[in-house]
Amino acid sequence: MKVIVDLCVVPMGVGVSVSKYVAQCQQILEAAGLKINLHAYGTNIEGEWDTVFTAIRRCHTVIHDMGAPRITTTIRLGTRTDREQSMEDKVDSVKAKINR
Amino acid sequence: MKVIVDLCVVPMGVGVSVSKYVAQCQQILEAAGLKINLHAYGTNIEGEWDTVFTAIRRCHTVIHDMGAPRITTTIRLGTRTDREQSMEDKVDSVKAKINR
Amino acid sequence: MKVIVDLCVVPMGVGVSVSKYVAQCQQILEAAGLKINLHAYGTNIEGEWDTVFTAIRRCHTVIHDMGAPRITTTIRLGTRTDREQSMEDKVDSVKAKINR
Amino acid sequence: MKVIVDLCVVPMGVGVSVSKYVAQCQQILEAAGLKINLHAYGTNIEGEWDTVFTAIRRCHTVIHDMGAPRITTTIRLGTRTDREQSMEDKVDSVKAKINR
Repeated sequence: MKVIVDLCVVPMGVGVSVSKYVAQCQQILEAAGLKINLHAYGTNIEGEWDTVFTAIRRCHTVIHDMGAPRITTTIRLGTRTDREQSMEDKVDSVKAKINR
Repeated sequence: MKVIVDLCVVPMGVGVSVSKYVAQCQQILEAAGLKINLHAYGTNIEGEWDTVFTAIRRCHTVIHDMGAPRITTTIRLGTRTDREQSMEDKVDSVKAKINR
Repeated sequence: MKVIVDLCVVPMGVGVSVSKYVAQCQQILEAAGLKINLHAYGTNIEGEWDTVFTAIRRCHTVIHDMGAPRITTTIRLGTRTDREQSMEDKVDSVKAKINR
Repeated sequence: MKVIVDLCVVPMGVGVSVSKYVAQCQQILEAAGLKINLHAYGTNIEGEWDTVFTAIRRCHTVIHDMGAPRITTTIRLGTRTDREQSMEDKVDSVKAKINR
């Protein structure tokens, strides 16, 4: 099953700056061969369900290993059976409907 | 790895009432042996990472099979390595700090 | 406009335990006269849009004043025009459809 | 209070394609003078708390007026008092820490 995910990982107990943990996460997702797009409040991910969630689990494992005792993550997750749709398709579909 | 999850599954393209899909989801989570607690905007789940995400994947598969062409789901997901904490512990911990 | 909200406030930069901040939040929401229900990964809130978001803003202000330099919050938020629905109605509607 | 928000609005009961509603939302946010960035699973928004939430409320009102009887929205929302940080700063901060 193909999924489009939006992932936001928040390490807790490591102070106010968490960018190094998020950067590590990006590299894990890329190493898993996933299509990703970083934005200001998360990362879009496109791929097969099991590949995506195995990679997210690895993000948690590695961030704990880096010293974060607690992680709270939020995920949006979409699947559809009516048609194929990529991350770019989703953005293009909205942009095409904005009246200029 | 143990996780506490908050899950909210939203079937799209099936009209305004989605409770029968959410009820189906509850039964899938229970059948997986997970500890769950339904609230007004989602379901708390406690269990092992793989058991939880296999069950959530099954929710998507079954809801699609029930006729929903599209599903958008949101998940909050917490892991910690500093100590064991159950769903009840989390609620109790807050309640103990409310000044009456 | 009436809303049902699910709120999860995460103070950052204050260590691993955040329950005293969440407890403070509960008291702010109650003091605003809102109907609330605490669960293991957030708080259900029912009320008028402006009352709810004024209270959530106050939660951020007070938690910063308590010493948290950064807060990341997640909100689910539902409105409907087809009919009145309370938090209890939502839970009952799902429970009525679970086959026992 | 300045906020960075990630907004995902999901109209329900209007079929499977919701891009025209999201496009309408984009225009409301822009008309409010907010800095926004559309991605594949939501929209980043930067602005003053009240301006942002007044615009989000207007999105709900307008989408209901367009015929959607029900809307479920998810929001991530960050505030900080330790320093100024823009949406670009957040992305740059992560990218600077990715080892190439």
